[in-house]
Amino acid sequence: EDDVYFGSYAHFSIHQEMLKDKVRTESYRDFMYHNPTLFKDKVVLDVGCGTGILSMFAARAGARKVIGVDQSEIVYQAMDIVRENGLDDVVTLLKGRIEDVELPVDKVDIIISEWMGYFLLFESMLDSVLYARDKYLQPNGVVHPDSCTIVLAALDDPDLQASHVTYWDDVYGFKMTCMKSEVIKEASVEIVKAEKIISDQVVVKTLDSCTCSVTDLQFSQDFTLTATSEGQINAIVGYFDIFFHKGCSKQVMFSTGPGATPTHWKQTVFLLQQPIKVTKGQTIKGHLVCKKNRRDPRSLAITMTVDGVTQNFMMQ
Amino acid sequence: EDDVYFGSYAHFSIHQEMLKDKVRTESYRDFMYHNPTLFKDKVVLDVGCGTGILSMFAARAGARKVIGVDQSEIVYQAMDIVRENGLDDVVTLLKGRIEDVELPVDKVDIIISEWMGYFLLFESMLDSVLYARDKYLQPNGVVHPDSCTIVLAALDDPDLQASHVTYWDDVYGFKMTCMKSEVIKEASVEIVKAEKIISDQVVVKTLDSCTCSVTDLQFSQDFTLTATSEGQINAIVGYFDIFFHKGCSKQVMFSTGPGATPTHWKQTVFLLQQPIKVTKGQTIKGHLVCKKNRRDPRSLAITMTVDGVTQNFMMQ
Repeated sequence: EDDVYFGSYAHFSIHQEMLKDKVRTESYRDFMYHNPTLFKDKVVLDVGCGTGILSMFAARAGARKVIGVDQSEIVYQAMDIVRENGLDDVVTLLKGRIEDVELPVDKVDIIISEWMGYFLLFESMLDSVLYARDKYLQPNGVVHPDSCTIVLAALDDPDLQASHVTYWDDVYGFKMTCMKSEVIKEASVEIVKAEKIISDQVVVKTLDSCTCSVTDLQFSQDFTLTATSEGQINAIVGYFDIFFHKGCSKQVMFSTGPGATPTHWKQTVFLLQQPIKVTKGQTIKGHLVCKKNRRDPRSLAITMTVDGVTQNFMMQ
Repeated sequence: EDDVYFGSYAHFSIHQEMLKDKVRTESYRDFMYHNPTLFKDKVVLDVGCGTGILSMFAARAGARKVIGVDQSEIVYQAMDIVRENGLDDVVTLLKGRIEDVELPVDKVDIIISEWMGYFLLFESMLDSVLYARDKYLQPNGVVHPDSCTIVLAALDDPDLQASHVTYWDDVYGFKMTCMKSEVIKEASVEIVKAEKIISDQVVVKTLDSCTCSVTDLQFSQDFTLTATSEGQINAIVGYFDIFFHKGCSKQVMFSTGPGATPTHWKQTVFLLQQPIKVTKGQTIKGHLVCKKNRRDPRSLAITMTVDGVTQNFMMQ
């Protein structure tokens, strides 16, 4: 399983896509460049360093030593890149899983990582960051981003219902209604227009990467959505916000929500079997359960109850 | 490897994408519905039946018996779908690799299959169709689509060069020039605008699925492109055309080329290390070698020589 996972990051186009996601990359850059005091003379660990961009940002921000670790083959390019930029006296890159490699230092002052997946937790890479934190972070150290929130909102989008559900009633003259329940189970990753949101946006989970544990990454949570206009809820949309706050004189954050500049994470859409009609101000109660898939711990099994109806979703 | 391959077709969204590709699905439909004489009372084998759509088209077109085979879990949905449409007296579906399953008949009259991958041969599914042909097709039988061509043309698209090559000269203030040669090696699948084609479009391979052998799927071929206008060749674009001709009173074809309605196969772009300036009417000589990747036979290793410069490309 993990060979497939790390193999997917050996493709160069995926790194190009991530680098070209300016919201993502410039947030990391701004966090580091605007907080030189935080980085001055520090030892930094970059978990899952990819092309080495975050490691180089840290070096430029004043770090004394940066160690980047990645199990994907891309790390060999990163080594070339670091040399090409004359940063090999500061940045050391290692190929391997963070759980397996031997670092050239006992402790680090700062851990940086871009570990986020769709709906924040897809790919379960945060587990490796927490492993690194518990093993290598010195007592007063920080992990960045330090805070992350998962947010839900209600979506009024009849086209989505038509495209994913009604579609199966007549496929070139054939009925494929059994596909409806199967397609609904697959949470879809797509860009949602902000004007289709018809509720407040509620935080259902906050993770502090400096203190949370792996068990916190599987959770259940009640939530209440309040309709901001009359309409029909076809789906719940999920996304995440990322914060670089702890120890920062200049705080940085970015959102992957509808309305913000789209990122390569887009949003995650959980379609409802039955649309729910709402009036402005009406509250809808819900419950979210987010777990790792037992058969593939990098994928997510999500159970969502909305207005009394429970549905299971998979992200894989 | 093959578990990953067939597993990818267990996702429902991929079947939705393929079904919603109207150029693809309606071509198969029209071929069958407009040639009822070909199908009347025949025994049809559908290799890689997916949701069963082609099997059902064949049944509606008058086939006496249709056998659909797929190794992916989607075949269980296809069984429901066939029942839902009251076609289970005609259509029989089997789960398994075509190389392993035992068909309920010795011979079939027609083999249908939608086996095409990016640049036609990516995924190497035609191998399985040819296996089925050699084992199950009766002497006067036909395989449809019966004819496929791979076509190349020259592309003048400076943005492509900027986005994939020049980009690496300055990535957020860092040089990543070593990424250029790596990114260029990955042929990219994208939709190319017809107005950016500045040469004739030349067929470099024609495959007759009724007669070709697995060894024909690895080939090398000289080609000559003639510039249709002055410009700069940044890339070679490849695509394929598909024909349903043999035994058809009403012939059907579709193209995945630039200018035709885009399909989910888009086009395949092979970027040149160095752009080539051309004047109208100028000819450019080239040579194409298309092979299976030895380490992963479902991926392709392509070598292209254009104007004396040889480059290696991978599709994986």
